[in-house]
Amino acid sequence: MTLQPDNPDALRHLLTLEGLPRAQLLALLDRAQHYADGRDNRSALAGTAICTLFFEPSTRTRLSFQLAAQRLGADVLNFDVSTSSTRKGETARDTLRTIEAMGVRGFVIRHHDDGAVAALADAAAPGTALVNAGDGRSAHPTQGLLDMLTLRQAKGDDFGRLKVLIVGDVRHSRVARSDLHALHALGAGEIRVCGPRALLPGDATLDGCVVSHDLDAALEGVDAVMMLRLQRERMDEGLIDSIDAYHRDYGLTSQRLRCAARDAVVMHPGPINRGIEITDEVADGPQSRVLAQVRNGVAVRMAVLEYLLAGRQP
Amino acid sequence: MTLQPDNPDALRHLLTLEGLPRAQLLALLDRAQHYADGRDNRSALAGTAICTLFFEPSTRTRLSFQLAAQRLGADVLNFDVSTSSTRKGETARDTLRTIEAMGVRGFVIRHHDDGAVAALADAAAPGTALVNAGDGRSAHPTQGLLDMLTLRQAKGDDFGRLKVLIVGDVRHSRVARSDLHALHALGAGEIRVCGPRALLPGDATLDGCVVSHDLDAALEGVDAVMMLRLQRERMDEGLIDSIDAYHRDYGLTSQRLRCAARDAVVMHPGPINRGIEITDEVADGPQSRVLAQVRNGVAVRMAVLEYLLAGRQP
Amino acid sequence: MTLQPDNPDALRHLLTLEGLPRAQLLALLDRAQHYADGRDNRSALAGTAICTLFFEPSTRTRLSFQLAAQRLGADVLNFDVSTSSTRKGETARDTLRTIEAMGVRGFVIRHHDDGAVAALADAAAPGTALVNAGDGRSAHPTQGLLDMLTLRQAKGDDFGRLKVLIVGDVRHSRVARSDLHALHALGAGEIRVCGPRALLPGDATLDGCVVSHDLDAALEGVDAVMMLRLQRERMDEGLIDSIDAYHRDYGLTSQRLRCAARDAVVMHPGPINRGIEITDEVADGPQSRVLAQVRNGVAVRMAVLEYLLAGRQP
Repeated sequence: MTLQPDNPDALRHLLTLEGLPRAQLLALLDRAQHYADGRDNRSALAGTAICTLFFEPSTRTRLSFQLAAQRLGADVLNFDVSTSSTRKGETARDTLRTIEAMGVRGFVIRHHDDGAVAALADAAAPGTALVNAGDGRSAHPTQGLLDMLTLRQAKGDDFGRLKVLIVGDVRHSRVARSDLHALHALGAGEIRVCGPRALLPGDATLDGCVVSHDLDAALEGVDAVMMLRLQRERMDEGLIDSIDAYHRDYGLTSQRLRCAARDAVVMHPGPINRGIEITDEVADGPQSRVLAQVRNGVAVRMAVLEYLLAGRQP
Repeated sequence: MTLQPDNPDALRHLLTLEGLPRAQLLALLDRAQHYADGRDNRSALAGTAICTLFFEPSTRTRLSFQLAAQRLGADVLNFDVSTSSTRKGETARDTLRTIEAMGVRGFVIRHHDDGAVAALADAAAPGTALVNAGDGRSAHPTQGLLDMLTLRQAKGDDFGRLKVLIVGDVRHSRVARSDLHALHALGAGEIRVCGPRALLPGDATLDGCVVSHDLDAALEGVDAVMMLRLQRERMDEGLIDSIDAYHRDYGLTSQRLRCAARDAVVMHPGPINRGIEITDEVADGPQSRVLAQVRNGVAVRMAVLEYLLAGRQP
Repeated sequence: MTLQPDNPDALRHLLTLEGLPRAQLLALLDRAQHYADGRDNRSALAGTAICTLFFEPSTRTRLSFQLAAQRLGADVLNFDVSTSSTRKGETARDTLRTIEAMGVRGFVIRHHDDGAVAALADAAAPGTALVNAGDGRSAHPTQGLLDMLTLRQAKGDDFGRLKVLIVGDVRHSRVARSDLHALHALGAGEIRVCGPRALLPGDATLDGCVVSHDLDAALEGVDAVMMLRLQRERMDEGLIDSIDAYHRDYGLTSQRLRCAARDAVVMHPGPINRGIEITDEVADGPQSRVLAQVRNGVAVRMAVLEYLLAGRQP
């Protein structure tokens, strides 16, 4: 559904990490590390206009892309479709093509529907590049990349030696899917997934993963724990009994974290529900890489925007 | 009501196209064509602050002006009054004068009331320029200019040879009024207007036009068809029987378009109600100039902002 | 509650004017005057990202800071927390630290709770600077500074010779508190406060002021009148009888203004409730400095942002 619509060797859009060759992924991470080291590159996209087009609102993701674009010298425009009165029945495709006709070359798109960004990519003009900033439960490729960059900074290049655990609502998580695509591509040694049965997907998503419903057992000896955000709606939907029960069974506490390797790192895509997925002590503790993830987010987005847009005619 | 408040030979604001001399109009179109050819001019308004001040929201018009201002090197600020909590009972005039006192020199203003932008122009300080981005049903001068630019690109300089047809809700349309002002000024050979009686104005707006209620007849041999947007409220107001009936009688289909000249162009100010004013086949067909209009919108707004603001003290 | 959290001689944040040494205050005013004279300084904060983080909306204050930051060459981002759906239960502290991790160095924060900005300052990383753009009823330091700059422009350096009157809802006003801090620091000759009993604070706020409930008497011979905005909620809360009664007793009219010194100036932080705190005749009259205050606001904010952020590593 969210396959790259053209040759992944010459990425035109970034829609998913699924099927992205390992070499391409590593090249993006290398470039992101260059920016994570604090470098700006204000001339890279000077004169290029980039529009954030969010059909589902997310201020932090929008800000991260906006900062990335500014540090590359681009002009940034924001279009929050979810709060706009401009829709007036216009289709998403017409919205895209209209802003494209205004001279915008890069689009950062978030949409609540699976595959919506890929569908828009089909409608885009030849000179336009789209970045999927999250569609439905399908993919959030820049989050996957920033998670890999964070993991590599903490644990080095040899993914084959790593045991990584993903905890929580994988079923509804585009973050988890993009992380899984990237971990498979980088050849992670062991990928474990842990969560309540109702929150794990029944399809091929977990192929190649060790699945568990017991967090203490799953944590045993892992090098990294990637916690997922729990949407409170899951309780209303009857998928979990209560927030308290979820925290009791799947919340990461300092005590539990001792089951992991001594130097294991803890990650979370944010925003954190403190006391639910993760306690304050863990979120703010020495093993947390939550703020490093945010920091790396800007660097990864710089690398992606530069890769897709630099050198194109503005 | 929206007459230019000062000598049109030295335009201080752009409030309407009514009464604008042909030479002035052509000079703006020439400059817009220069920008439509892809040129930037980042130093033209460097250090000049421009504020979009929208009392009635419109994201696409705001984005178009914002891109135009950025390509001229201006600083752009957005003030969406309609969603702001800042109003707190402040008058529009006080809002304008406050932002003006902050050092903003250019204002792009949309307002739901006829004449509201002209009234604000009376309150503006000497160094300030206002662009009417649409007031009530009165005027939308940059839309009129971009339509003329699009028409000239398609049909050449000799407006005297052209038959142009405007279709739809002229009565409530500021776009139609600005188009009519511009077509008269440029000496269009024949201006036809077609729509249901209840949606055509009873005043002097249509003086000099050939009025018809039969679209097939009206299309006969025209060089350009300018479709207007239909607001769904017109049905609630009892001005049209139904959306279906409107489409049947006044919707532009491929079949109907064959009544026009073979190389006739189709225009629409957007956003399009597909299947109502116009079918997909026509909107996306070879005679459509809808995306060219959007593209020209940025170029026209660059020309207007530059004309009004360049060379002024920032 | 809003004491500066570190040595005021080396201000790291601007949280309040309380306790700010006179020399520091004058240095900021001198620098602001430099910018008020029309100078830009586009290289001062080039490459520095500043985020406006408003938990309580205020478009005019946001625009003023945004213009100040742009004229210093900074990148500006806006985060309107009050209308954002991004909160999703995230704490203000997590929001700050997240945006900080993205590389933002300066934060302009407005919050409805007293002391909220100081609490966020405690959470900020070493390289980050916060400007309080208004917290609860406690402080609005840049408003205090711009009022002092406006006063100095009108009346000269010798604050010891000045009689200044503050009129209205001092109890709920952060503007009044910051003005009082500044007037005390600058050694104003006489500070008078006038308002209905229910709208004057009962604590130490008015120490050193001459308090009155009779506006005509209070106006006698003053050099400057600082009117405060009246929130209409005060009527619902039973703190005033009616808007009309408030205007009759505490509204500034041309006639009343004759009680003041002949060259007295009138100030108001805006937005003005015309006909309530102040009549049109006074607001737009020759003694009004309302627009000068707005103009000085940008200059003061440039001085503050430059002071806190220039020379720091971006």
